[in-house]
Amino acid sequence: MSNAKENETLRLETFSDGVFAIATTLLAFQLEAPKHPEGEFRSGLLLHALAKQWPAYIAFFLSFATLYILWVNHHRLYNVIHRSDARFMFYNGLHLLLISMIPFTTSLLSNFINTDAMALAALVYMFLFACICGTLLLMWIHASTDFYLLKRPAADVKVKTVRLGLIISASAYGVAALLALLVPYVSLVIGLAIVIYLARLKYHRERVV
Amino acid sequence: MSNAKENETLRLETFSDGVFAIATTLLAFQLEAPKHPEGEFRSGLLLHALAKQWPAYIAFFLSFATLYILWVNHHRLYNVIHRSDARFMFYNGLHLLLISMIPFTTSLLSNFINTDAMALAALVYMFLFACICGTLLLMWIHASTDFYLLKRPAADVKVKTVRLGLIISASAYGVAALLALLVPYVSLVIGLAIVIYLARLKYHRERVV
Amino acid sequence: MSNAKENETLRLETFSDGVFAIATTLLAFQLEAPKHPEGEFRSGLLLHALAKQWPAYIAFFLSFATLYILWVNHHRLYNVIHRSDARFMFYNGLHLLLISMIPFTTSLLSNFINTDAMALAALVYMFLFACICGTLLLMWIHASTDFYLLKRPAADVKVKTVRLGLIISASAYGVAALLALLVPYVSLVIGLAIVIYLARLKYHRERVV
Amino acid sequence: MSNAKENETLRLETFSDGVFAIATTLLAFQLEAPKHPEGEFRSGLLLHALAKQWPAYIAFFLSFATLYILWVNHHRLYNVIHRSDARFMFYNGLHLLLISMIPFTTSLLSNFINTDAMALAALVYMFLFACICGTLLLMWIHASTDFYLLKRPAADVKVKTVRLGLIISASAYGVAALLALLVPYVSLVIGLAIVIYLARLKYHRERVV
Repeated sequence: MSNAKENETLRLETFSDGVFAIATTLLAFQLEAPKHPEGEFRSGLLLHALAKQWPAYIAFFLSFATLYILWVNHHRLYNVIHRSDARFMFYNGLHLLLISMIPFTTSLLSNFINTDAMALAALVYMFLFACICGTLLLMWIHASTDFYLLKRPAADVKVKTVRLGLIISASAYGVAALLALLVPYVSLVIGLAIVIYLARLKYHRERVV
Repeated sequence: MSNAKENETLRLETFSDGVFAIATTLLAFQLEAPKHPEGEFRSGLLLHALAKQWPAYIAFFLSFATLYILWVNHHRLYNVIHRSDARFMFYNGLHLLLISMIPFTTSLLSNFINTDAMALAALVYMFLFACICGTLLLMWIHASTDFYLLKRPAADVKVKTVRLGLIISASAYGVAALLALLVPYVSLVIGLAIVIYLARLKYHRERVV
Repeated sequence: MSNAKENETLRLETFSDGVFAIATTLLAFQLEAPKHPEGEFRSGLLLHALAKQWPAYIAFFLSFATLYILWVNHHRLYNVIHRSDARFMFYNGLHLLLISMIPFTTSLLSNFINTDAMALAALVYMFLFACICGTLLLMWIHASTDFYLLKRPAADVKVKTVRLGLIISASAYGVAALLALLVPYVSLVIGLAIVIYLARLKYHRERVV
Repeated sequence: MSNAKENETLRLETFSDGVFAIATTLLAFQLEAPKHPEGEFRSGLLLHALAKQWPAYIAFFLSFATLYILWVNHHRLYNVIHRSDARFMFYNGLHLLLISMIPFTTSLLSNFINTDAMALAALVYMFLFACICGTLLLMWIHASTDFYLLKRPAADVKVKTVRLGLIISASAYGVAALLALLVPYVSLVIGLAIVIYLARLKYHRERVV
């Protein structure tokens, strides 16, 4: 029985990994190569055309880093649980729904960086990340309450640290979303800082990753 | 030998998971970020442009929820079988063919919600889900007749409950497809109700998921 | 050591499954939903617009069926081998390169069915399948010569049957490619017949799949 | 504990395989089938239209071969390590970020082969490959220093050979990038030569792959 349940979590991970990997790769697929126009068009002009796309590179880089770190955290979470239940699968579905929307908000940000509507684009962008951290928090609270879905022995799982870490991340993204209305570039820098913070979140006392 | 057969089902699942995960992620990829137009374009106008896309969000949400629940059911079905045969692989292929068409019907629905042609778009959308539940039913009937492909011991597998549940779901989608011609919005609400129904379908007496 | 080699084949399969699953799902992604035009546009007109896309549905269906059966055969082949070497990985790469081109030829066929240029489109389409069967044949010859990469005991592996089956399939696709120049629709029917033939190819005396 | 760590590497591989497989398949998705134009359009004209796309085929072929060999090397590297740590995951993320950009640079090369701006397009294309080899080198140095993350016994792992091989590859790509400014076609030929070189890099004294 316990063997069957292990296997169940495995397939949930495979499916989730698929969604993460595709969302990640689609980010770069939104980078569009300039077309060769009519008439003379030397390397200098191409360099200029490529440089003009800097908003797309920034949005791509920030989204890629965030998605990768969110995957790492999703992966760490599954590393310390050993089974799933209906509600956990529901939260996981909600999490993936939001994850799959990242290419959309990335494209939005990329289209409006440095325009008069950047404030709203950055707000939507950061708000999605806040919701994603929120669903990760829901998964964690459900899994760790009374060590409900955790692997045994669970004594080394840092239940409170992770809970606090996810609350901080979700709140920080929320603050970044609001700040986007005033100082959108600062909001992006906060986004990068949260990535570094989330990268260092430890789910287990002994495991290095 | 039995080990080899386990492995075979595993790879069928990996491939199917891939198709499900890609179809799922492509749904969100159809959401298009508004482009920055010429002239002044402040956050208020962007908000308006985003709000105008509500049909796309509804279609995305309903399709994502349905696809996820269909994956969950596909996963539960594989949880109680331990091997595959040629006919089962054929049914599985038919199932995946229809699954891979969901982004197409979603895009169709999204393009025609709230237009004079919504009736047909919703009919096609619901009819595809009816066919998908139908292929799942075919897989189940083939796998569970005389416990043919089921894991042993199979006493706790709820063969009849699942059969009835899938017949009800396929029929309800069929009814929703017909109702779409008269009251397309009601049809979408029924679609959401079936998602909740399918989420609660139990394949095994003891397993929680 | 043998354990490590098992694992190596596993990851080759995971990667290959990914390429197959993505190519498969991208096929349906090429089906485009009609846009809502200006002016009145009732369900009847939408039905007409959808019906006008029949070449896309035919191309999609035939490519999906072929891709699925090619995956099944790839899977059966890996079921009877237990390790890989540099040349096998090279052939596998060539196989995947051609597999990943199927959405391209499908789109080509779909754009030119029932036009004056259908002959060439169908020729390219069938010729790609001939090459794919050819690379599968190369993999099989390399793996099965002196039972080089086969699982032990290999007595039940139908080495000659499979070799013959793949030669027949590759040749039939070649004939279909040439026939496409004269009677392109007949060529498509032959394509469907080869799918059924490949579905029934047995790689192992005992295994049902 | 060691079991858990194995599993951790496994999921890192699954996710990475996903990114590689999607990037690989998206390459071919950039090949566009000509549309049927108005008026008469026979097979001869279609053949001409297809032939005119030769830059896209060259770029596709070179990128596919490179991506596949990079995956093979990524796979060989994971074959001789047995665990991961935070820094290794960071390098892996950087590696995947660059991998996911290959469809972008491929599209760039394909758009500008044989134009006045080919020099810059080929430079960017080759420079990305240099960076990718660089991140693979970082991963290897981190994993192999003091046999830190290597599987035990590690005596047969060719630590220095691989390090040298990756330094040579990264440098050769760097040289190819610079040469692109003068003789862009030569640069592409060097790219193909590095693929062959990387295909032959051995990570382990005994393993054939």
